[in-house]
Amino acid sequence: MSVSSEDREPQVGIVMGSNSDWPVMKAAAETLNEFGVTFEADVVSAHRMAAEMIDYGTQAHTRGLRVLIAGAGGAAHLPGMLASVTPLPVIGVPVPLAHFDGLDSLLSIVQMPAGVPVATVSVGGARNAGLLAVRTLASGTDTQAAALRDKLQTFQADLAAQAHAKGEALRS
Amino acid sequence: MSVSSEDREPQVGIVMGSNSDWPVMKAAAETLNEFGVTFEADVVSAHRMAAEMIDYGTQAHTRGLRVLIAGAGGAAHLPGMLASVTPLPVIGVPVPLAHFDGLDSLLSIVQMPAGVPVATVSVGGARNAGLLAVRTLASGTDTQAAALRDKLQTFQADLAAQAHAKGEALRS
Amino acid sequence: MSVSSEDREPQVGIVMGSNSDWPVMKAAAETLNEFGVTFEADVVSAHRMAAEMIDYGTQAHTRGLRVLIAGAGGAAHLPGMLASVTPLPVIGVPVPLAHFDGLDSLLSIVQMPAGVPVATVSVGGARNAGLLAVRTLASGTDTQAAALRDKLQTFQADLAAQAHAKGEALRS
Amino acid sequence: MSVSSEDREPQVGIVMGSNSDWPVMKAAAETLNEFGVTFEADVVSAHRMAAEMIDYGTQAHTRGLRVLIAGAGGAAHLPGMLASVTPLPVIGVPVPLAHFDGLDSLLSIVQMPAGVPVATVSVGGARNAGLLAVRTLASGTDTQAAALRDKLQTFQADLAAQAHAKGEALRS
Amino acid sequence: MSVSSEDREPQVGIVMGSNSDWPVMKAAAETLNEFGVTFEADVVSAHRMAAEMIDYGTQAHTRGLRVLIAGAGGAAHLPGMLASVTPLPVIGVPVPLAHFDGLDSLLSIVQMPAGVPVATVSVGGARNAGLLAVRTLASGTDTQAAALRDKLQTFQADLAAQAHAKGEALRS
Amino acid sequence: MSVSSEDREPQVGIVMGSNSDWPVMKAAAETLNEFGVTFEADVVSAHRMAAEMIDYGTQAHTRGLRVLIAGAGGAAHLPGMLASVTPLPVIGVPVPLAHFDGLDSLLSIVQMPAGVPVATVSVGGARNAGLLAVRTLASGTDTQAAALRDKLQTFQADLAAQAHAKGEALRS
Amino acid sequence: MSVSSEDREPQVGIVMGSNSDWPVMKAAAETLNEFGVTFEADVVSAHRMAAEMIDYGTQAHTRGLRVLIAGAGGAAHLPGMLASVTPLPVIGVPVPLAHFDGLDSLLSIVQMPAGVPVATVSVGGARNAGLLAVRTLASGTDTQAAALRDKLQTFQADLAAQAHAKGEALRS
Amino acid sequence: MSVSSEDREPQVGIVMGSNSDWPVMKAAAETLNEFGVTFEADVVSAHRMAAEMIDYGTQAHTRGLRVLIAGAGGAAHLPGMLASVTPLPVIGVPVPLAHFDGLDSLLSIVQMPAGVPVATVSVGGARNAGLLAVRTLASGTDTQAAALRDKLQTFQADLAAQAHAKGEALRS
Repeated sequence: MSVSSEDREPQVGIVMGSNSDWPVMKAAAETLNEFGVTFEADVVSAHRMAAEMIDYGTQAHTRGLRVLIAGAGGAAHLPGMLASVTPLPVIGVPVPLAHFDGLDSLLSIVQMPAGVPVATVSVGGARNAGLLAVRTLASGTDTQAAALRDKLQTFQADLAAQAHAKGEALRS
Repeated sequence: MSVSSEDREPQVGIVMGSNSDWPVMKAAAETLNEFGVTFEADVVSAHRMAAEMIDYGTQAHTRGLRVLIAGAGGAAHLPGMLASVTPLPVIGVPVPLAHFDGLDSLLSIVQMPAGVPVATVSVGGARNAGLLAVRTLASGTDTQAAALRDKLQTFQADLAAQAHAKGEALRS
Repeated sequence: MSVSSEDREPQVGIVMGSNSDWPVMKAAAETLNEFGVTFEADVVSAHRMAAEMIDYGTQAHTRGLRVLIAGAGGAAHLPGMLASVTPLPVIGVPVPLAHFDGLDSLLSIVQMPAGVPVATVSVGGARNAGLLAVRTLASGTDTQAAALRDKLQTFQADLAAQAHAKGEALRS
Repeated sequence: MSVSSEDREPQVGIVMGSNSDWPVMKAAAETLNEFGVTFEADVVSAHRMAAEMIDYGTQAHTRGLRVLIAGAGGAAHLPGMLASVTPLPVIGVPVPLAHFDGLDSLLSIVQMPAGVPVATVSVGGARNAGLLAVRTLASGTDTQAAALRDKLQTFQADLAAQAHAKGEALRS
Repeated sequence: MSVSSEDREPQVGIVMGSNSDWPVMKAAAETLNEFGVTFEADVVSAHRMAAEMIDYGTQAHTRGLRVLIAGAGGAAHLPGMLASVTPLPVIGVPVPLAHFDGLDSLLSIVQMPAGVPVATVSVGGARNAGLLAVRTLASGTDTQAAALRDKLQTFQADLAAQAHAKGEALRS
Repeated sequence: MSVSSEDREPQVGIVMGSNSDWPVMKAAAETLNEFGVTFEADVVSAHRMAAEMIDYGTQAHTRGLRVLIAGAGGAAHLPGMLASVTPLPVIGVPVPLAHFDGLDSLLSIVQMPAGVPVATVSVGGARNAGLLAVRTLASGTDTQAAALRDKLQTFQADLAAQAHAKGEALRS
Repeated sequence: MSVSSEDREPQVGIVMGSNSDWPVMKAAAETLNEFGVTFEADVVSAHRMAAEMIDYGTQAHTRGLRVLIAGAGGAAHLPGMLASVTPLPVIGVPVPLAHFDGLDSLLSIVQMPAGVPVATVSVGGARNAGLLAVRTLASGTDTQAAALRDKLQTFQADLAAQAHAKGEALRS
Repeated sequence: MSVSSEDREPQVGIVMGSNSDWPVMKAAAETLNEFGVTFEADVVSAHRMAAEMIDYGTQAHTRGLRVLIAGAGGAAHLPGMLASVTPLPVIGVPVPLAHFDGLDSLLSIVQMPAGVPVATVSVGGARNAGLLAVRTLASGTDTQAAALRDKLQTFQADLAAQAHAKGEALRS
């Protein structure tokens, strides 16, 4: 699938420390596509290109991005570092690595000091990161927000319908 | 301090399972006050008033609320249950109780299934929950959003200034 | 195997958030079948159909159900939410998901606040959930209870006999 | 408070390894008192009087007890050992000791092998153990059960009322 | 391999809750064989044959056994229960089961209350359990003890030689 | 209390990394005193006097010691290092330090590689370490062993009597 | 005590996110003073002054610093971020905060991705951080290094002497 | 690959408890090769050849080694024991074994007492151990140090270039 919505300005930036995180993180991109939210995806490594990472975070809102989604594993510093230099909401996705099943990633992302929030989702929860970005845009006051709120409610109704169908399948 | 911004419509709902969570959660309210964001605070217990809790979540966006902040401890179900019935972004604050130092609260809030995101902050991180709500509103396209973005950047500059002052104090 | 005992009124409700939990949860159904206890099994998702979940819990005892068994994983809210709206005993089964080996599920189920008990069994312990439901019915004062107590004692004698046979097999 | 309901036959046995567990476990007794359920409380140590413990478990149902509540800490063997010799439902209360905050107690109680269930409640959750015993008796078919179901629903309504009052207190 | 040393009186009893533990526990038997220490191996389940388990423990020293090795997993009660009824040293082997990688087994075995010690070895550490039994017998004052001490020192010299050989292999 | 049994040859060596461990470790000494087992207590630091520590372990059995008890906290290397150079049984006591409540101490002591066993007791379990040393000596074939077995059975009967008395106190 | 060695060029930079970390971190400074190693101490916050933090790390070696010591708590990003922009060895000190006893700090510091090492010491282990900085300088080829190696060996001999004295105190 | 740099004096000693650790530890050797730093690799087991291990540590600096890298798993005592007898910086690599995913190894290595530092890297982080050794040598005052600092900066620039290339690959 595409890692950006090429013709239109991206509203969400999906970043990760390495393209090896993409198998986890692409669920965020797919979700944004489902809701028609434009995005860009990129490798922005806190530990391998710190200055560019700071620049990415500092400039994100001036480039028109409205939400950042950052995935990272182990000593996962990317979401928190971005959050420290942007006024945008930053959503952190703990990526599970070879050891500790993502617990290190989770704690490294969620236990931020007062002043610098990261909206953390579950280990490997990139789909929920995408949905949280949609909800964030949907909390606005513009027509896109209203449209997204409607889509979210349709989405939630679909989830319920799927759950009902699963129940039916189980009972039959 | 006040638990609501009485004259104006609340934009953020701060809810918790018991008023015993208020000593933790009031930091969210104080933060919203600092940024001039209106809010309401209430006890909405997932386990003691489930139907009203569902109603609160279902109606939140129709009442004009734009972000929910929910604090809960132990088997902390309030943030996730609200997230399941509202299209709004829900911010979850793991409240530490007598045992496990908030680890149970954290996992109960952050490990949500795909489809129902909760934006989780650190254990006891109500101040960051407030800031995340501000960032969410600041990600919008209206004039309040632009004003909040400015305030957030001033806030971040103040954090930097305080850190510099602390360094000076340490060095002198 | 069948997911209900069709001709007779179910005494136990086995519910889970998704039919993907059935491979774990069917052990509860099999156990009830072994003891001749009637049951129904269904998908009742706390996070995808919250209102119906509340209804299911609220009405369970009026429909003649006497015990609920609820399986859930991750931020596992189903057992506790059902317990909050029913006077019936609710047995919670922590289902292990892709990460944390069920520790998140366990803590999300067992660490309920005072007032709303969930009878928690081991991670993946659906067979024990079935047995606990049988013991609950067997603690009654009616003839079914007496018969189940006898069956449970036979069952326990069988477990001992199997253990003896295993010892014999080991020694020979 | 009294540790038994002297004039009438006890329906619930509350046991613990030492009277030092009583400050935690008495909440179970108080709860049973609230609901008018008779009980006995005793020290039955798995590790200091194993044979008597086995006898206690083996004979419990023949003495008219219908539910056992067992509290234990650390390598907490009492609930599981009782469950292995009685057909009654056994409710386990993990008692927190000087180290590990009850995690060892919880795992030692809840992770029972298939065949021998223990209905585990939260660390220190003796009040919920009492309520679970009440729910168990309330799941029966006799008039006491019906009366207890009514009381449980009143109890749940009271919890809701208290939560409402707390909300009011918070808002005012 | 054989699970006992048939012609001679066993000095060590190796017990486990199920023959499914044998693949882990047989390393203890193999070790005793290496050192010429007689043993018996049997299934003695704390949860499936509690009374026999108590009998096994109570009579072990009268039958001439001098050390017990007990393997168990999950809510692992066998080592501690045996320790409570025998004056013999009991060595506990935490067996890893499907979840939690043996942490529940370890805590259930090692965290015994004051008065009832269990000599706990590592998760799955049956070989070390066998060696600890040998060391225990070797700490005596008789000729077998002296012989075992010699063998243990030869064994330790062999370990050193193997480590040297591994170093050589690595360097060449 | 005395840290040795001066007039007679010590049978048990109690060692620890610092005299700051003595408040925990003295329970081992008290227990040996209760049973009339001679001992010596000393500071033998793995990390501050490694060569002497190796010497202590290497010579322990030649000096007539029959069991070693070693207490250590944090990265607790003393029990395992002693076990690597002595043929005697080594009992390890995890001492809890300022952080992690002894979990680091426990894992550093119990998770020994195959070949080098440490008989680990609970966090802070020095009394059980003393009792395990007594059981070890009691497993011998000499008259002291027989006498200690008798004392251990009296001790166990006393534990039962105390438990009965606690039950009586609770019931009255 | 002084937070720098004013007259001479600092060789070690001790940095932390806030002066509230100083009570933990000053042990590093004291240790460097003991060994006559010059240092500077400053507040350099990853989350409150990210750009300056990057500058600090980038320029450290050009300013003559040879080792960095960085203390941080919770989602502790400072040591890893500095390590990503400096060629100097960076020593990370996990500072324990209000929850999780430093486990989050430890994992956030130690679990760095391949390519960017942080030399992590124990939770709160600032003294060892100082000693590690001394050892690092002592591993050099210049006269200071040789002098520091001598001092380190004297220091180790003193530790041994203290341990011996503690043993004497215990035995007397 | 070679386990030593045969013609020249080794500057770094890479040691491990068994050659079974080599698949993890060889990444340290490869890294040193990349930077042209000489090394030796050997099996030095704390638990199987304690006296030689002490000798290895005691003599390391007299043999010209300047940094030690020690890998160990489970109750991982090698790094700390070496650190206690050498003035050299010791880098510890927690090797993950069959259980606990390296958490036991990590805590056994990192939680060293004040006075004896070990520079701990991530679980399985042998490559970072190698890089930390390089940074240590690079912190010196000689020409090799200056050359290594240059190489490290080239290395860091390469990491950044690779991250950029990965971003490009992701975007295209």
